[in-house]
Formats: sequence, structure tokens, C-alpha cells
Amino acid sequence: MTAVTTYTSRVVRITIEYDGSAYNGWQVQNNAPSVQAAVESAVNRLTGGTGRVRAAGRTDAGVHARGQVAVLSLPETLPVERVPEALNSRLPDDIAVVAASSCEASFDPRYDCVMKQYSYSLTYGPVRPALGDRRSWHVKRPLDVAAMAAAAGLLAGHHDYTSFANRERAGEDNVRTVDRSELVVLPADAAGRGRLVYYVEGRSFLYNQVRAMTGTLFGIGTGRFNRDDIPRIFAARDRAAAGESAPPWGLCLEWVLYPGESRPEDRGGLVGR
Amino acid sequence: MTAVTTYTSRVVRITIEYDGSAYNGWQVQNNAPSVQAAVESAVNRLTGGTGRVRAAGRTDAGVHARGQVAVLSLPETLPVERVPEALNSRLPDDIAVVAASSCEASFDPRYDCVMKQYSYSLTYGPVRPALGDRRSWHVKRPLDVAAMAAAAGLLAGHHDYTSFANRERAGEDNVRTVDRSELVVLPADAAGRGRLVYYVEGRSFLYNQVRAMTGTLFGIGTGRFNRDDIPRIFAARDRAAAGESAPPWGLCLEWVLYPGESRPEDRGGLVGR
Repeated sequence: MTAVTTYTSRVVRITIEYDGSAYNGWQVQNNAPSVQAAVESAVNRLTGGTGRVRAAGRTDAGVHARGQVAVLSLPETLPVERVPEALNSRLPDDIAVVAASSCEASFDPRYDCVMKQYSYSLTYGPVRPALGDRRSWHVKRPLDVAAMAAAAGLLAGHHDYTSFANRERAGEDNVRTVDRSELVVLPADAAGRGRLVYYVEGRSFLYNQVRAMTGTLFGIGTGRFNRDDIPRIFAARDRAAAGESAPPWGLCLEWVLYPGESRPEDRGGLVGR
Repeated sequence: MTAVTTYTSRVVRITIEYDGSAYNGWQVQNNAPSVQAAVESAVNRLTGGTGRVRAAGRTDAGVHARGQVAVLSLPETLPVERVPEALNSRLPDDIAVVAASSCEASFDPRYDCVMKQYSYSLTYGPVRPALGDRRSWHVKRPLDVAAMAAAAGLLAGHHDYTSFANRERAGEDNVRTVDRSELVVLPADAAGRGRLVYYVEGRSFLYNQVRAMTGTLFGIGTGRFNRDDIPRIFAARDRAAAGESAPPWGLCLEWVLYPGESRPEDRGGLVGR
């Protein structure tokens, strides 16, 4: 496919927020809606071109993002501060561009990334949530939250994460560094449901890794595992040794950092100064 | 219609959470789905009867509730602690019973109420929210939040609220007491959007009153009104003098209190001790 753009273009970095519920993940696929296809469609309706949009992370089907980062080409005649509104007016309601800036043509959102943060939201208690919490995984059984919080840090570090990787990756290089693995306990909601957010940070992750780590932490909460099992789970290098993957709708890509950038919470949010 | 229940029944008070998006309000209507009809359907499938469910407040189409209170008859053979699960398994996903207790047969959820709390959630900023905030009213224009916060309290008190009532109520007794009218400013979200929650408390409200009060506060935020206009708006006794009603999806009935009960936040939530 050849680009038919006739304008002088420049490379723009955008930050994207989306509710992944209606999409079969970030990446373009045949016969299934993807966030990438929706963003490319908006860009190409804006420019009349056929350009591609490349992102930092290929979020899985049903996974959300608050700060996905992507790169695309746009006409130089469009001021960069007008890019969010120009794209948002062409995007579906469940996708929004929250920031845009010019960047080097060599910028690669995937390989230049130095850190990503994922959050996994979980509520627990006998009554399922009816109002507004469809981005949490709700579990009915009681959880030993103290055991989960104490064990979470053991899932961080420099390890072979084969036990947390898709089975097709067995035998490949599955060594990764997880810089943060922390369970934050929020106050119970008005209906008495417990609320947990599990934060995981690192430069790169295996497909399904965060959901497998979450499922393992859940197994600690239910008593299936205890913290002494974690070294054994790593050593097994076998997906069956860890917990089942938690469902996608609790997972959200919070932010992606590049060299020289401070964490969003230290600068007042994704679009803070 | 005659009840066909053949069991000995007792009166049960329930607390209900719902996402009102799919319903034409609480109250049963012909040819339109209502929360009341959904709850009655669940109760009657459980009991085989044709009983009614009466609630504290008739929330309007699209309005949500975290702590609606209702009363119904159930067989004495069903332990009250099993009521939430028995009903939740028969209710749609967007309605949940979060608590149940036995009560006096004379208990009237509407007339016995001593205080209700509504919240109205509002976000503002140029980028519409794509992820998870469909229960907020999003406005693109900047708001003078300090002016709104300073004026909010002026909407409380013992007043004739005709200017905040549906036009059909002109000439009726529209004097009400609003015990709290307070704007809480939350930290901006990751995309830099401002977040506000407007809390209103009182024993009883006119149809549409809280949304009209919210719209008037919004008018202060945009500069259409200033705080000195509020006495004039009350005195006009004319719906056209106040701001337009804010849309229903930002409004939520948080809780309903009865004699001798403490506020949910003082007892750790709606189902706290």
C-alpha cells in the first residue's frame, strides 16, 4: 500500500485513552474491531491519506488504556495543539486523544519506552456491583488481602517469567524485569465491597503476563497459594504452576514513559507540565 | 389485581444500587422499562406472587442510585440474610440489592424518610472522557469553580423552590428545606479534566429540583449568573429564571435516612454497622 498524501507531513506523538470493552485489542485484525483500526480510520478521514498508527503496547482484547502512546504522520499545516480535537471529533465515544506533541521522526513508541504502568482493579464481596464498576474484576469470595499485599512484591524483580507467559512462549527468552508489583487497598465502597488496585511497572511484559500475575495474587488471596509458593512458581517455568489469568476488563495501561520523562503522578497527570 | 401468595409473609426493607441508563426511571410505566418493574419481576419470580415494591424516591429516567430504599413482602421462610443473593440472581446486571433487613409492616420508605443525599458528578475540560466516566456530565468549557463553590451554599435553606421545579408545579406548595448544598472539588484526572461532585441533602425534593440546582450552579461557573443573582432567582418563582436542568446521567441517589439512623459515612458505608 502506498501513501497518497501529498502534503508535507510531520511526526506527532499522541496519548490515547480508551475503553477496550468493544475492541478485540489494540492491533489491527481481519474481521474484528481494533482500537488501532478506529484511530487509523479517524486519522485517514482527517488527512485523506492511508497512514498507519504505531503504539507502545498491544493491549489485549477487552483491556483499557488511560495513557497509551502512539505515533502517526499528520500534515504540517495542522497545528499540533489542534490534533486532539481534530481526531476526537472523528473517533467513537470510547476512544479519545488526550494529548499530542511533535516528536522526532525516529521516535519509536514501542522500543524507546523505558517504563510502562498497568493497573488491575478488583472488587470483592458477596454483592456484584451494578453501578459503574465494569472496569473491575468482581469476585464473590472473601480474600486474604493482607497475604496478597505481603506477597505482591515477590512477583517483582529480574526473573524468568515463563510461568506467567502464554504456553507458545515456552523455550523463548522470557526473562523480564518487573520494577514494581504492589497491591493498594482502597476503602470499601458504600455497599461494603472491598476494592483493590494492583500496580505493575516495567519496561516490557510478555503477552498476558500482568493478568497471569494478577491471577496468581488472587490465588494467594483465596489460599490456593501462599507466599512461599512464589519461588517454586518461577522455578517451574510452566504456565500451569501459576494462577489462571485474571479477566481482561480489570486491566488498564496507565502510562508509558520515555527517556528523560518524569512519572505522570510527579507532574500532575498525563498532560501535566 | 389480587395477591396469590399463600405463604405467611413479612415486610423486608432493601437497599438497591442501580445504573439508571437503561431505564425510564424508578416508577412502573406502560411500554417503558423501569427499575421498579425489574425489581418486582425478580421478587415475583422468587415468590410466585404479584406483590409491589415501594421506594423512597422516584428517580427520573437515566438517574442512578447507590442507596435507594424500598419495601416489599417476602415469605417468612426465606431468611432475611439470604434476600440479597436470592434477588440478585434474578435481577439484571445493572440492578443489585446490597442489603436487606426486616422492618415494621407500617414502614413507609417515602414518608418515613428524614434525609436523602443526591450527588451530581461533573467533569470539565476540552477532551471528552472515553474511559469509565459515563456517570458524569462532561462539559467542554472552562468553569469558574471557585465561584461555583462559593455560591453552592446559597442554594440551601428553607425556600420556595418554584424556580427549580417543573413548570406544571407553578402555584403549588414548592417550599422545601435543603440542608446541604456543597460543591466538592476533586483532583484533576490523568488527562487533566477537572472533577466536581455536587452534594445536595434534604428530606424531600421537587421533581427535577437537584438537576435544576446543578444547572444553575453550572451557570455560575460559565459566568451566566453570579452569586448575587441567586436571591433574585428564588424570588422570581419562575423556572426560566434559573439555569437549565443538568442531564440525568450525572445524578445519583446516594442514600436515604430514617429516624434514629446515622449517616452512612459515619458507619462505614450503606451496609456498615
